[in-house]
Amino acid sequence: MSTVIAVETSDVRFPTSRKLDGSDAMNPDPDYSAAYVRVVTDGGDGHEGHGFVFTIGRGNEVETAAIKALVPYVLGRNAEELLADMGATWKLLAHDSQLRWLGPEKGVIHMAIGAVVNALWDLKAKRAGVPLWQLLATMTPEELVDLVDFRYLSDALTRGEALDILRAAVPGREERTAALLAGGYPGYTTTPGWLGYSDEKLARLAREAVAAGFRQIKLKVGADLADDVRRVRTARAAVGPDIKIAVDANQRWDVAEAIEWMKHLAPFDIAWIEEPTSPDDILGHAAIARGVAPIPVATGEHVQNRVVFKQMLQAQALQVLQIDAARVAGVNENVAILLLAAKFGVRVCPHAGGVGLCEAVQHLSMFDFVAVSGTLKGRMIEFVDHLHEHFVTPIDVHDGSYFPPVAPGAGSEMHAASIAEFTFPDGRFWRADAQAQAAPGAGKVLV
Amino acid sequence: MSTVIAVETSDVRFPTSRKLDGSDAMNPDPDYSAAYVRVVTDGGDGHEGHGFVFTIGRGNEVETAAIKALVPYVLGRNAEELLADMGATWKLLAHDSQLRWLGPEKGVIHMAIGAVVNALWDLKAKRAGVPLWQLLATMTPEELVDLVDFRYLSDALTRGEALDILRAAVPGREERTAALLAGGYPGYTTTPGWLGYSDEKLARLAREAVAAGFRQIKLKVGADLADDVRRVRTARAAVGPDIKIAVDANQRWDVAEAIEWMKHLAPFDIAWIEEPTSPDDILGHAAIARGVAPIPVATGEHVQNRVVFKQMLQAQALQVLQIDAARVAGVNENVAILLLAAKFGVRVCPHAGGVGLCEAVQHLSMFDFVAVSGTLKGRMIEFVDHLHEHFVTPIDVHDGSYFPPVAPGAGSEMHAASIAEFTFPDGRFWRADAQAQAAPGAGKVLV
Repeated sequence: MSTVIAVETSDVRFPTSRKLDGSDAMNPDPDYSAAYVRVVTDGGDGHEGHGFVFTIGRGNEVETAAIKALVPYVLGRNAEELLADMGATWKLLAHDSQLRWLGPEKGVIHMAIGAVVNALWDLKAKRAGVPLWQLLATMTPEELVDLVDFRYLSDALTRGEALDILRAAVPGREERTAALLAGGYPGYTTTPGWLGYSDEKLARLAREAVAAGFRQIKLKVGADLADDVRRVRTARAAVGPDIKIAVDANQRWDVAEAIEWMKHLAPFDIAWIEEPTSPDDILGHAAIARGVAPIPVATGEHVQNRVVFKQMLQAQALQVLQIDAARVAGVNENVAILLLAAKFGVRVCPHAGGVGLCEAVQHLSMFDFVAVSGTLKGRMIEFVDHLHEHFVTPIDVHDGSYFPPVAPGAGSEMHAASIAEFTFPDGRFWRADAQAQAAPGAGKVLV
Repeated sequence: MSTVIAVETSDVRFPTSRKLDGSDAMNPDPDYSAAYVRVVTDGGDGHEGHGFVFTIGRGNEVETAAIKALVPYVLGRNAEELLADMGATWKLLAHDSQLRWLGPEKGVIHMAIGAVVNALWDLKAKRAGVPLWQLLATMTPEELVDLVDFRYLSDALTRGEALDILRAAVPGREERTAALLAGGYPGYTTTPGWLGYSDEKLARLAREAVAAGFRQIKLKVGADLADDVRRVRTARAAVGPDIKIAVDANQRWDVAEAIEWMKHLAPFDIAWIEEPTSPDDILGHAAIARGVAPIPVATGEHVQNRVVFKQMLQAQALQVLQIDAARVAGVNENVAILLLAAKFGVRVCPHAGGVGLCEAVQHLSMFDFVAVSGTLKGRMIEFVDHLHEHFVTPIDVHDGSYFPPVAPGAGSEMHAASIAEFTFPDGRFWRADAQAQAAPGAGKVLV
């Protein structure tokens, strides 16, 4: 038996705003950040659990404060008990009535629960000696449904229906695992499409994406219609007719504006319109979906929990469901969402990028392929090529595909040296930056 | 001109769990708390702005951390400029892209924005020498719509429609103000109905409520059906057929369960069913509303923002809209919600209780009566009789009605002595409590 003897948080921030990586119509200057948590036991096996919430800079300290509020629920507890029944562990955190008031089940506190839950999954997978996707994909249907909180879902998905979905996918698990290991999971790339890039850079990066094997690219839109038309035309000219081009408005529009704007982009053969409006606006997304059909509507990276995803599916508000590894309350809630998507027959194309989101979310899609939906049809994982070097087990993307991680764990562990350097405000980088800015005539440190 | 020279936060917690006040099916042991903020200027006029987020205990420190994250947006700024254009000030806080990521527009960060916005409104009203309701009710329709962020609302309410609603209510403002001052605003009471109370206490408190002039009481339900039937029957017997009885499930049910449970309570003539399920479940509330009709569905105290209220109205998911002074991003967003309710012709019956919620929310209902909906029909403000003594201008409730505050401000200022005593963990009460629990054989301090 082992005990959780430390739960440490770190406020890690990368100065990405200085290069306009990650700029979009709503987020002009993100500093990609992680509210990071490390769970340590006295098990003597060298295994730790690592997890994080992704944020874009200011306020990352609020997330670490929320993770700290969860420490008493984990620290000092029997690790084997916590890990043996992850469904119960999830409820221990998510059902605490006092903390629940801070959401309920949304925002800062819910994401913090996700970080802790994911850290425990990382630890569980490391102890099992397998990558998380494989750990999940070898659990029985009964074990998997026990992870899910069906509260507020039963009008759309019951435990029995979830079991049926999972049982139907048991045959073929081995073949799909083999196919995944051999051929990978399709990816698409957002690298060319940030708003801050010039048309030349966009075209060059788009061509490079195709050369690298990607079959879809994505462009940020929504700041200026004339610019968007020109940029989408530029991208289409660069990649030719056979590569899919998705666009992403990052919540910039109201309903009528979204429908109108998309009329001008539709001639360029758009693969999907992502986040056209508020992620809370289920009925708005449904109206937009009707208005822009046959262009599919995609959303999810800011969808707060399984209850909103349920309604998005009930209302036919989305045709592409974009899970995020660090927005909802961790692996357990994403299993619920994958089951909902399977029930409604909607494809899942995860949001990634940020800090470590690619490393984390690939496990969920791979699990989905092997043990839930059983298909890759129309599915792909977002790929953005930055900050991977800070992770102990960075993604393996080549030939346009994600190749399955084989290292044990959930992929969420950052190098200790990266944490030390980019901890805000006392890490080496930020101290040097503060000194540089304090010096006469000096500016920000460029990375 | 004056400058904001201090923005102080306090983590204030009252040990209410020790008396089962506030116990319900989802929240068995709340410690009513306030993440409190005080805005100080160098204006030399003695006026400060006070605001708060209401929580129920653990995690209150996460809210104060979120308020601290907002300090740089207010501290050192010209107070007159901040107060002169409260619409712009709201956007300054709510549209910051990095902080917005933590919601967006929901949960911990959104409520923190509400506390700061409300503190500024408190300061603005004090400087104007009038209570907040009167300050709002004497603004022009144009000034009022400038407070509102219409983003994500335009498919249900445009700026022009909001102007029309407000202009239509300009005639009669004076008469309604006079009526309000003379007769007050109807209240109803939840004091009898907490789950932790015995049937005898319930019946006694219900009779006392009627004797005190209340025309509606509310009971918590949802933990046990047989208990609920017995308790509602007890209450009905105590108050007779002419007093309304509402019930509140505090999110306990799924859709089918809510409809089934309410069949058993319907014979007792239920005024509304409140929070039957997740506050995020718009479509679920709509299904429940259809299933329990003609019993109205009420919700709102946990509805995260104007976008979800908009959909609740679009989907006919609620028939009673319950604003809360401290859940959304302050007065500005509640003005938007009151306008949405007026547009859809739905009555507003605020949630109150907690810490200071009665003191704060009454201003919004009174403003609504004078300058928005222009009616009291079916409207009433929740009343719970505890913790008012901690406020500088406590509510004046008698004869079953709220009588309008006349003191300048928003009602949100707590006595400095209360803050000092109940600040967690270093206030006098909590230090004494910790010592008592550390002593051999001793228990918690009772208040």
